[in-house]
Amino acid sequence: MTPAMQALFPDVDTPALMLDSTQVRKNIALLQSRADAAGIRLRPHVKAHKSSHIARLQMEAGAVGLCCTKLGEAEVMVANGHRDLLITSPVVGMLKIERLLQLGRAASIQVVADDELNIRELASAARAAGVDIGIVIEVDVGQGRCGVQPGPRAAELARHVISSGALTLAGVQGYQGGLQCTPLFSERSIGVRAAMDRLAMSLEELRRAGITVPVITGGGTGSFPIDIELHQLTELQPGSYVTMDATYTATEWSAAGSGPPLGQPLTVLASVVSRPTRDKAIVDAGWKAVSSDAGVPRVKDRPDLRFEFAGDEHGAIVAMTGKLGLNVGDRVELIPSHCDTTVNLYDKFVVHHAGRAEAIWPIEARGKSQ
Amino acid sequence: MTPAMQALFPDVDTPALMLDSTQVRKNIALLQSRADAAGIRLRPHVKAHKSSHIARLQMEAGAVGLCCTKLGEAEVMVANGHRDLLITSPVVGMLKIERLLQLGRAASIQVVADDELNIRELASAARAAGVDIGIVIEVDVGQGRCGVQPGPRAAELARHVISSGALTLAGVQGYQGGLQCTPLFSERSIGVRAAMDRLAMSLEELRRAGITVPVITGGGTGSFPIDIELHQLTELQPGSYVTMDATYTATEWSAAGSGPPLGQPLTVLASVVSRPTRDKAIVDAGWKAVSSDAGVPRVKDRPDLRFEFAGDEHGAIVAMTGKLGLNVGDRVELIPSHCDTTVNLYDKFVVHHAGRAEAIWPIEARGKSQ
Repeated sequence: MTPAMQALFPDVDTPALMLDSTQVRKNIALLQSRADAAGIRLRPHVKAHKSSHIARLQMEAGAVGLCCTKLGEAEVMVANGHRDLLITSPVVGMLKIERLLQLGRAASIQVVADDELNIRELASAARAAGVDIGIVIEVDVGQGRCGVQPGPRAAELARHVISSGALTLAGVQGYQGGLQCTPLFSERSIGVRAAMDRLAMSLEELRRAGITVPVITGGGTGSFPIDIELHQLTELQPGSYVTMDATYTATEWSAAGSGPPLGQPLTVLASVVSRPTRDKAIVDAGWKAVSSDAGVPRVKDRPDLRFEFAGDEHGAIVAMTGKLGLNVGDRVELIPSHCDTTVNLYDKFVVHHAGRAEAIWPIEARGKSQ
Repeated sequence: MTPAMQALFPDVDTPALMLDSTQVRKNIALLQSRADAAGIRLRPHVKAHKSSHIARLQMEAGAVGLCCTKLGEAEVMVANGHRDLLITSPVVGMLKIERLLQLGRAASIQVVADDELNIRELASAARAAGVDIGIVIEVDVGQGRCGVQPGPRAAELARHVISSGALTLAGVQGYQGGLQCTPLFSERSIGVRAAMDRLAMSLEELRRAGITVPVITGGGTGSFPIDIELHQLTELQPGSYVTMDATYTATEWSAAGSGPPLGQPLTVLASVVSRPTRDKAIVDAGWKAVSSDAGVPRVKDRPDLRFEFAGDEHGAIVAMTGKLGLNVGDRVELIPSHCDTTVNLYDKFVVHHAGRAEAIWPIEARGKSQ
C-alpha cells in the first residue's frame, strides 16, 4: 500500500460517497460538446445522480431540460428551481396524476405514456385542472419493459392524445436500456441500430398519419457515441456519464476498442475496521454502502486487491497477488459497479478537489421512488 | 387475479414499504417468550428494522437492551430515548471514537473490539473523557469477518482491556452470520454447534486466566431455536425475526422440517404501470425499491407469478402458469428476499391493520452506515 492510501481524506467519516468535482465538470462538458457538435439536444437524466446541484451544472453547460424516472425526482427538481422536465416512465392512477398536475402548474412537464386508459385519465384530469401536460408516446424498442410494440400502435395513441383536446403530443420515446452496458462496441452498435429500426416503424406510421412528432427521445451513456452518429433521436437522455461506474468504464466507446473518454469521479471511501488474518482486511462498507446488483466494486488504484461482500455493513478486501498492505484504520476507495443504485443509498456527496474535501452536495432525490 | 388485489391499499402511493402491525407484535412476543422460557436474555438487533418505535416495542416486551451494527444507528436510538446499547462491529479511528464517547455520556454503551491498538485508543480516549465504555471481545467463530481467531487471543485482549483501567470488560461475542439462512435445519445446527465450539476455545482460555466474562453474546433469527437449546450464549441478538423476509421464511426451524413460527409482516406494495404484452406486467418497483442481493422477491398470495428485476425502478411480473390477471393500475405486494437491505431503501413503514393503513413509523436509522 502507498502511504497516500492511509491518509485518504482523514477528516471524512466513512463509509462516504465521494465525488471529484473537477472530473464531474469535465464529464458534463465533454458530453455536452459532443451533442452540440452533432446538433442534438441533451436532456440529461437525473436518476443516476439525484442531485439538483449537478442538474444545475448540466443546465448551465447547455442541456435543454432534465429527465426523471419518477414523479418524486421531478418534485425535487422543481422544488429546486428546475422548470423543464420529462418523466420517462408512465404516471398511473389518480394519486400520482394529481401530483403530476401540481408539477404542471409550476413547470413545463412532459410524461411518457403507453396505455389508452392512462391517456384518457390524464386528459380528463388535465382538462379539469386547466393544466398543460406534454405526452411522449413510448415505443418498446427491444427493452421488453414499458412501451407499445413497434408499428401502428404509437400513431393510434398519438391520435388519442391529439383528439383529447386537453393534452399536447410532445414526442416519442424509444429507450434501449438493456444495451447501454454491452461491453463490445460492435455488439452494442448492432443492438442500437436494431432498436432505432423498431422506433422507425412507429415513426413511419405517425408520418403516414400526418402526425408531427416534435421530439424523438431516448439513448443513454453507453449508446451515446452511436446515437450521435445515427442522428435519429433529436434529444438524448444519458445519466450515468456524470458519475460513471466500473461497469461503464469497462465498456468500449468506439469500434477501435477505446474506453469511454469519461473519468471516474464517484467512489465510496471505506475504512479498515478489522484485520482478522494476514491476507484479509474487513472494511466498513457492505450492501448498505455500495450496491451489488451489478456485481462487486473495484478497489481504486489497487488492481491487485479484490473486494468481496461480507454482509450488510462489511466488505472483505483480499490480495490476489502480493501483499495486502492494509492495517486497521487505513482507507480504500471503492469504484461502484452501478452508480444509480449506489448513489441511492446516500443522502450526500462529499465533494473533493485536489485531494481535499471541499463541499457537500445533497442527494435530494435519494429514495424518491414514488 | 382476485378483485382484492386490485383494491390493495388504494390510498397508499407506491412503491411503499408496508408493515402489518399485528404480525410485528406477534413476532416480537413469540421470540421474547421463547427466550424467557429458556432463561436467556434477548438484546434484539435494530440493523434490520432501523426503527426506534419497533425497538421500543421490543423493549416493552422484555428485551434487556438493543444491538446496533453502526454508531449512526446507535445515535438514532439514543436520540429516541434508548439507553442500553451494544455496537456489534468495531469502532475504529478518532472520528468515530469521539462519537462513541458522546453516546457513552448519555447511555450505557458496549462496543465490540478485536484489535489491540483499537483497544488502546479506546482506553486512552475514555480515560481522557471520563466516560465508561464496555468492551466486548469478538471471536471469529467461522464467519470469516471480524474477530480474533479462537484460542488464547481473546484472553490476551481481555487482559489489555482490564489492565487499561479505563474500560470495562463487558463480554465476548461470537456471531455466525453466514449460517443464519442455511435452509436445512440439520446443516444449520451442525454449523452453529461448530461455531459454539470455536467460541468455547476462547472462553476456556479466559476461564483459565481467571477472567470473568459477564456476557456471551451472538446468535440471529436462524440460529435462535438452536441457541436456546445449546444455552451457551447468555444474550441473543436476532434482528430479522420482526419483519422477516422470503429467505428466512424458506428456512427450516426444527429437525422435523417445519418452517419458522414467525409471520411475514413486511411487504413492498407496487403498482402495475404498463402491460406491454399479454403475459407481462411492469410494476414501479426495481432495485431502488426492493433489494436484490439475496435474489428476487416473491409475489404475495400469487405463487403462480414470478418477479424479474427490470432495472432501477421497474420490475416485470410474469405468469408461470395460467393467466396473469393484472392490468395497469392494479397492485401487488412483494415479499423481499432480504429485509435488512430493503428496509434501508425507505424512510418510513406504512403500518397497516386489518387491511387498512393506520400509521407511519419512521425508519430513522435508514442510511446510517457511518
